[in-house]
Amino acid sequence: MAGETGKKELGKIGEFGLIRLLTEKIKLKNKSSILGVGDDAAVIDPGDRQIIITTDMLTEGIHFDLVYTPLKHLGYKAVVVNLSDIYAMNGEPGQILVSLSVSARFTTEMIEELYEGIHLACEQYKVDLVGGDTTSSLTGMTISITAIGAVEKEKVVLRSGAKENDLICVSGDLGGAYIGLQILEREKMLFNQSGGIQPELEGYDYVLEKQLKPEARKDIIKALSENNIVPTSMIDISDGLSSEILHICNASNTGCRVYADKIPITHETKKNAEELNLEPLSISLNGGEDYELLFTVSINDYPKISTIESISIIGHIAKKTEGTYMVASDGSFIEIMSLGWNSLKNE
Amino acid sequence: MAGETGKKELGKIGEFGLIRLLTEKIKLKNKSSILGVGDDAAVIDPGDRQIIITTDMLTEGIHFDLVYTPLKHLGYKAVVVNLSDIYAMNGEPGQILVSLSVSARFTTEMIEELYEGIHLACEQYKVDLVGGDTTSSLTGMTISITAIGAVEKEKVVLRSGAKENDLICVSGDLGGAYIGLQILEREKMLFNQSGGIQPELEGYDYVLEKQLKPEARKDIIKALSENNIVPTSMIDISDGLSSEILHICNASNTGCRVYADKIPITHETKKNAEELNLEPLSISLNGGEDYELLFTVSINDYPKISTIESISIIGHIAKKTEGTYMVASDGSFIEIMSLGWNSLKNE
Repeated sequence: MAGETGKKELGKIGEFGLIRLLTEKIKLKNKSSILGVGDDAAVIDPGDRQIIITTDMLTEGIHFDLVYTPLKHLGYKAVVVNLSDIYAMNGEPGQILVSLSVSARFTTEMIEELYEGIHLACEQYKVDLVGGDTTSSLTGMTISITAIGAVEKEKVVLRSGAKENDLICVSGDLGGAYIGLQILEREKMLFNQSGGIQPELEGYDYVLEKQLKPEARKDIIKALSENNIVPTSMIDISDGLSSEILHICNASNTGCRVYADKIPITHETKKNAEELNLEPLSISLNGGEDYELLFTVSINDYPKISTIESISIIGHIAKKTEGTYMVASDGSFIEIMSLGWNSLKNE
Repeated sequence: MAGETGKKELGKIGEFGLIRLLTEKIKLKNKSSILGVGDDAAVIDPGDRQIIITTDMLTEGIHFDLVYTPLKHLGYKAVVVNLSDIYAMNGEPGQILVSLSVSARFTTEMIEELYEGIHLACEQYKVDLVGGDTTSSLTGMTISITAIGAVEKEKVVLRSGAKENDLICVSGDLGGAYIGLQILEREKMLFNQSGGIQPELEGYDYVLEKQLKPEARKDIIKALSENNIVPTSMIDISDGLSSEILHICNASNTGCRVYADKIPITHETKKNAEELNLEPLSISLNGGEDYELLFTVSINDYPKISTIESISIIGHIAKKTEGTYMVASDGSFIEIMSLGWNSLKNE
């Protein structure tokens, strides 16, 4: 809990100094945040709503590479990926707890920079930082964030509620974050091989921002609520569209039809993908980290959903016996496989 | 969130295999646990109570040494230290989320053993495991646990409520966990120097159990509640009595008097401490990880508190201007300093 650190001193300012530094600026914004950092635990009052809680752990060298990830962006993204899970339940995030372990190679300034990004995300999404833990590690950095949200009981949206004929919708566009990562990896390799050639990142702004500073789709949840739409199922796209649609179909015991030419891919993503000899459609199906929302709505909601900006209807839910297929632009059926991020990476 | 893992394969059974293995036995026990692992987030219904939430991160080589810590004990302890924080707010824990990062040197069997301890603690304390994250790391193991509890609004106990003349109480006995650690470190050193002499752990059962398998004082919270006692302030002893009493006095804006000969130390702890040339009183003041509860009650509760087993009254709260002092057995005053675990370790 906040106020406690690991058993070895963390840098020259000491554990209490670091905690003070990282928490002194915190002011609670939400009515539901009763007590924040500084006691054994935080206290939250959800009123008469249910609590939604999720956690994600990011480890250096696996989830992020500090060679090309600015610490401020990392802090921001670490918060956003957790909030995305709260939105994917149709909830409203209210609080986060941040646990961090760092080795001696990290300076106080670096940790402050990371927290700048964390605070910025809290500001942006109106979330309170109410606790955490700061400790040392023998090597590397690990960030573990827990996000807490609330929702009215009858409005929780699970993965399991999709019904036959429901429309399959996706927010924003797909594939950008994966292309952004490929660009960063390419420039890192060139830099290492050349012994110091400066990276060429011009012309890649869109995909780099999708990778380094993704946003959670708070705006979509708000728009759905304003239009009195409660999705029948929902998930956020962290592992790729294929993998997530299969999660929904498996949990809901249904099949699906997804139309290839309805999958939203921006011009920039397409152009950059082709430059890298990657197939945009495959990337948008299997590239991860887009943090867009994938959800299903009743066909009765069609008139309302079609008026909301940034939402694409990409297909519909089918009977389980009809299987899970993508319909290609030539009308042929391709079975949707759960490749996801992993397999793509190992290709 | 549970259901997601890191972006690289974790061992030969793969990410989905591992998640299935670790979660298939989970059955929700608490009415407040609405939805557990398997969606973007868990859902909890606290009824009309407030939510208490805390998190702790344990890193290999800093908080635990796998040379002498059985993985099952580690899993158990990792849960217990978090529950202890919930009890220290006078709350009742209901759920935990477990995030784990492990390097390739860990086998599936090792992770299962760790989870056996986690499940055992959940069983023992009637807590549901409702989510988490399992991912890989480049080196070592990091465990981050978040515990969620609930409490009636008017019964939350903070560190800041102690008043002049309140009695200072402590549960159980102190110093054992620290002595246990010293024994383990000694035997590890001897083992390394001798090239394999088997450790001598007989006669140290009590202190070793305090170190390797501590318990959170659920029984004390229950006894206080049954006796209609709501402490005025409370904290759990993770860093040592000195440090924790200063936390209470600082937060409550008071001073204190603690009587040295009232501090509970068992015969075993004393004997083992002397063998190690350590001063039992100093160890009980500054040794960490006892996870006993330190709390204050109104003097009006004296008749009731004195009938509860396992609680020692060790002093009283004084005016801030009177300072924070321990009264030695010869009547002399010694200022209480926040040495805590750290300084002791660096001596």
